Amino acid sequence: MAAHPVSPLAPISYPDLPEVAGVRFATAEAGIKYKNRTDVLLAVFEPGTVVAGVLTRSKCPSAAVDWCRQSLQGGQARALVVNSGNANAFTGQKGRDSVGKTADYAAAAVDCNPDEVFLASTGVIGEPLDPQKFEGVLAGMAGRLVATPYMDAARAIMTTDTFPKLSGATIEIDGVTVTINGIAKGSGMIAPDMATMLSFVFTDAPISHGVLQALLTEQNRTSFNAITVDSDTSTSDTLLAFATGLADMPAINTIEDPRAAVFGAALGDVLSELALLTVKDGEGATKLVTVHVEGAVSDESADVIARSIANSPLVKTAIAGEDANWGRIVMAVGKAGEPAERDKLSIRFGDLLVASDGERSPNYDEAATSAYMKGQDLEVGVDLQLGSGRATIYTCDLTHGYIDINGSYRS
Amino acid sequence: MAAHPVSPLAPISYPDLPEVAGVRFATAEAGIKYKNRTDVLLAVFEPGTVVAGVLTRSKCPSAAVDWCRQSLQGGQARALVVNSGNANAFTGQKGRDSVGKTADYAAAAVDCNPDEVFLASTGVIGEPLDPQKFEGVLAGMAGRLVATPYMDAARAIMTTDTFPKLSGATIEIDGVTVTINGIAKGSGMIAPDMATMLSFVFTDAPISHGVLQALLTEQNRTSFNAITVDSDTSTSDTLLAFATGLADMPAINTIEDPRAAVFGAALGDVLSELALLTVKDGEGATKLVTVHVEGAVSDESADVIARSIANSPLVKTAIAGEDANWGRIVMAVGKAGEPAERDKLSIRFGDLLVASDGERSPNYDEAATSAYMKGQDLEVGVDLQLGSGRATIYTCDLTHGYIDINGSYRS
Repeated sequence: MAAHPVSPLAPISYPDLPEVAGVRFATAEAGIKYKNRTDVLLAVFEPGTVVAGVLTRSKCPSAAVDWCRQSLQGGQARALVVNSGNANAFTGQKGRDSVGKTADYAAAAVDCNPDEVFLASTGVIGEPLDPQKFEGVLAGMAGRLVATPYMDAARAIMTTDTFPKLSGATIEIDGVTVTINGIAKGSGMIAPDMATMLSFVFTDAPISHGVLQALLTEQNRTSFNAITVDSDTSTSDTLLAFATGLADMPAINTIEDPRAAVFGAALGDVLSELALLTVKDGEGATKLVTVHVEGAVSDESADVIARSIANSPLVKTAIAGEDANWGRIVMAVGKAGEPAERDKLSIRFGDLLVASDGERSPNYDEAATSAYMKGQDLEVGVDLQLGSGRATIYTCDLTHGYIDINGSYRS
Repeated sequence: MAAHPVSPLAPISYPDLPEVAGVRFATAEAGIKYKNRTDVLLAVFEPGTVVAGVLTRSKCPSAAVDWCRQSLQGGQARALVVNSGNANAFTGQKGRDSVGKTADYAAAAVDCNPDEVFLASTGVIGEPLDPQKFEGVLAGMAGRLVATPYMDAARAIMTTDTFPKLSGATIEIDGVTVTINGIAKGSGMIAPDMATMLSFVFTDAPISHGVLQALLTEQNRTSFNAITVDSDTSTSDTLLAFATGLADMPAINTIEDPRAAVFGAALGDVLSELALLTVKDGEGATKLVTVHVEGAVSDESADVIARSIANSPLVKTAIAGEDANWGRIVMAVGKAGEPAERDKLSIRFGDLLVASDGERSPNYDEAATSAYMKGQDLEVGVDLQLGSGRATIYTCDLTHGYIDINGSYRS
């Protein structure tokens, strides 16, 4: 696959994430699909590490997703193996054999049970993934584990991503420093329906499996589940959070513990930043678009309308063309199938009111609106004036770059 | 707007539709948006003409759609006024005034009641449509009505269409010839949710308003409601059928009349051809794609899955790139939210089985499949093996042409 230019929305710098006590990793070139780049990540956790996760709701999940769904029931993790270049999805019995063998190789390399190994794969669907690719590689990786830099881990899981995605938070709880590091990959087939394609969060917080799962599910809702690049939900969406428990404080064992809220908010910050980075690296993206819907009859209704706008090819191509074509927002509200009254609807781009009371705003200023559309970070606001339901969805524009990348991905 | 190249899927020739007794029309250049091309169609019907219609289910319908919904209750038609270049949608009180005045001008020009005038507008949303544009034009048009050629009528209603869309059928019922002529326009914002953007059918069949409506609704379901270009449902979708009743036979007054089925089948042929022409002129289209889903738990479930495939940007860009990327079909089935069992699923391109029993087919032939993808008329078949539900949806590929057209439509 040809290299694609780096997204114009790429961050100017990347955070230098600190060590997380109890987490070490290594990367390798297994030659699964790409040449001359790392394509396997092995992360190893100290005994006692708990894990929580959210996985795709696709009816055709990958073999790795099936494996994680099973292993999450134990709640304990000692290793994570991620490969890019092959999704191991729709690979039948071969796929099941492949994940089983890969887990066996990892378990042998790090001396744990296979059901404490978590697996994730992204890339082409339908191509068998030969587990022999991992056999020698994993043993070697286990012999050269490091605690940093996380940049290496973020790079090893990239597919069509044009930049690595990292985010971290360091908080103090009762005078003890707790670290949360996260990495993610995109960047097409992104309309997460439980999680993004792949994201992994590592923390030294002492927290129970149940509390970690509850916080992850809650914070995922407004981060990864609030983004869409192309409305296409992956077979491989996987978000896993690993907590080693090595920060020196009593364990957080209930959701009512006041420290759970502090930790949850920081976790949410990390997930939100990773989700936004994923949109900013959406295939072909040149603009980040935040769609706010308010005044809907319910939050659920607002969410459907916001996604109808964020997934509309006509809205996304107009934004790519820097065209303040608010009529297409009207169209997307109208087609959503949710309660809406045309003559109460108002629409704004940023702070500029462009339509209200069912027609173009009397104060509409074409020059000001066109100037606004030239920005890289745009907001579309819709007020239905029917109730108090609201939702925010993040997306990107639809450009020639998306067609370039996806017209020739597999070959 | 720059002219776009004619779709490679355009027909090689156009039918020379015959006169329909009781139907005459004229076209004009009103200068609504486009220069040097006709943009208004006036069709005039003999007294006694009945009308049936299906209109967009958008919650933000155009003023013309609201007008038609009201006038359809009367079931009588004497005139149809269609303009291209301005949708008169989301134009508030100005839009309501505009349709009222336009109907008044047309009624005066052809000497009928305003509620016997039907209106349709497509083009930009949100721009007020000045009814004065029609005032002088309509009186002049009424003075130069003709019975043919329908090509002129089809051209006057085009917006981003790259070719006119016409279809006709001539049938014999009890020895009497009945003519059905139809025209349609596309070609973006096409995911009809009751009808296409605009289509008009003219017949001399003597048929009651009620039977015509029943047949139109039924035949629309598998024609216009079975196509999607971009998943975006228009504010202006309008399909109207006018029957002058001048063919010399007793009237068809009940759906049980055996002649109703004969007429309905011919009407269905005309609607299906117009719908396929609309897809073939989908913005940027280079391939016609027929998605067949069978083995679903119900026809409704099959329809949702077929639309999930037909609307997937990743499926459509892969087809544009002539890439037999069947993994994206798996993805689209998986994300549809309908019952599906990964390990029973089979997928074919044309007659080539590419995946079965949850993995790549043992007989998969990359060379043969790649050769098939180079065709212009492609079939995607999915068998869920769960039940007997089936559906067929027609779509086109997603290309650079779509981005070109829609990144600069309004400006």
